Amino acid sequence: MQELTYFNGEFVEPGAKVVSIDDRGYTFGDAVYEVTRVVNGRCFAWSYHQDRLYRSMREMDIPVKMTPDDLTELLEIMCEQSEIKDGYIYLQISRGAAPRHHAYDRSKLEPQMLMYIKNLDMDAIRKDEDGVKAICLPDERWLHVDIKTTNLIPNILAQTKAEKKFAYSAILFRDDICTEGACSNVFVVKDEICYTHPADNKILKGITRQMILTRVAPSIGVTVIEKEFDRAFVEDADELFFTDTIGGVIPITKLERNVVGDGKPGKVTKRLQESLNKLMEEGLP
Amino acid sequence: MQELTYFNGEFVEPGAKVVSIDDRGYTFGDAVYEVTRVVNGRCFAWSYHQDRLYRSMREMDIPVKMTPDDLTELLEIMCEQSEIKDGYIYLQISRGAAPRHHAYDRSKLEPQMLMYIKNLDMDAIRKDEDGVKAICLPDERWLHVDIKTTNLIPNILAQTKAEKKFAYSAILFRDDICTEGACSNVFVVKDEICYTHPADNKILKGITRQMILTRVAPSIGVTVIEKEFDRAFVEDADELFFTDTIGGVIPITKLERNVVGDGKPGKVTKRLQESLNKLMEEGLP
Repeated sequence: MQELTYFNGEFVEPGAKVVSIDDRGYTFGDAVYEVTRVVNGRCFAWSYHQDRLYRSMREMDIPVKMTPDDLTELLEIMCEQSEIKDGYIYLQISRGAAPRHHAYDRSKLEPQMLMYIKNLDMDAIRKDEDGVKAICLPDERWLHVDIKTTNLIPNILAQTKAEKKFAYSAILFRDDICTEGACSNVFVVKDEICYTHPADNKILKGITRQMILTRVAPSIGVTVIEKEFDRAFVEDADELFFTDTIGGVIPITKLERNVVGDGKPGKVTKRLQESLNKLMEEGLP
Repeated sequence: MQELTYFNGEFVEPGAKVVSIDDRGYTFGDAVYEVTRVVNGRCFAWSYHQDRLYRSMREMDIPVKMTPDDLTELLEIMCEQSEIKDGYIYLQISRGAAPRHHAYDRSKLEPQMLMYIKNLDMDAIRKDEDGVKAICLPDERWLHVDIKTTNLIPNILAQTKAEKKFAYSAILFRDDICTEGACSNVFVVKDEICYTHPADNKILKGITRQMILTRVAPSIGVTVIEKEFDRAFVEDADELFFTDTIGGVIPITKLERNVVGDGKPGKVTKRLQESLNKLMEEGLP
């Protein structure tokens, strides 16, 4: 197994110093990205990630330089050549490099593509599946977090605050409404029904969230309702969980200083988690 | 005269490919920056920019690796060696390079410093002083734009929209309140009194804005009031102007499709502009 890094058409060393100081990804955070899980040596749900990537590029007005088929082939080559079984692929496309000026000129920019495949510590992930702590923080991000860009300062500040308090992550609240986590989506379970924020401009439409809604929950007869709910509703939850690409379904068993439910992963949460893990083992294009 | 680029302790070529793919400035937009005018071969109001830079670093929890004195000396060397008379210095400090993880660990990161000095096209700036067009757009940014970070996607999208409509820039409105421009501050003049948004978390406290408030306006007997005002107030203005480091005082003579005042730079605006230009010629540490 070998971790591989690809930048603009060639393989480079991990952490290679190959980015221009004029790359708009560096001076404006002017880039979009995706993170995809590699399970059994294959990308899981890549077509969903790919659709979202191209949507992000459309929303950001970044021109497409690689067809979906060519991009998929490149990811398959990364998986094959690395021989990584359990890992992830990070893919970032910046608008390109040009002398710094806020406004961009599409005709003078060549998008820059970074991609790498890395191993995952599956033991750490399995450990999180037994339940994690979450803290609560205000959601102070911009109003288009549905676009998966690298303008991530509010996220990294929130995530750092969470980890300093030994939490897995932070649950964010905008005007008292629970939106999502610092780098994940949030679900509340009450009376065996799941609730999560609607997929509008205030959350990132997570692929794992989407798997839960459209495949996992329906297959085991769990109802999921997309609606807004406030902090009191979260604090009164029977069960709580995060979803993200790396961790899958992550039960939240402690919220700030309080125990959630009986302090163990909830029944509905466990069923969703097991069902998602099964789907990931089976694979999905 | 020679444009110079400095990166982490050495001079490099303009646009040099020296940034790590793991630089958090590249993957999270995790960096702060300043732009300072060089007038007559000297930095104008550098101490103000420096104070703001160190504040941004404090707010972002980025450790200081260079004392104010050493940093000032470095800027002076850039000015001297380049022999640039009319130009600007761009200075960016990212949190450092490390394998991508949202939360940062201060102990494992070495901040990366980029700095370059460039010439300015003074003819273009003088032309803008005769009056420019502005458009109006919603302010969709995060809630700490007082920190001067490189998370600038909302700004670059707004500025691109403005320039596509042949405007100098966009005036942003949050919940109908005028905050600032896409990369400048905004002033309204009504009955010879100036108004601008208070310096809270919703605007960047521009140095030129500060010069107007604390030095320029008081020296010529013009009153400036910091208060919130709405779009109707802007549309009903006698005079309108942007302030920014590069352009100074830029009269807005057209707002969307409407003429502002009599379509020429306003009387108060011109007096502030002339007085600021005089101050810039004199210099300020």
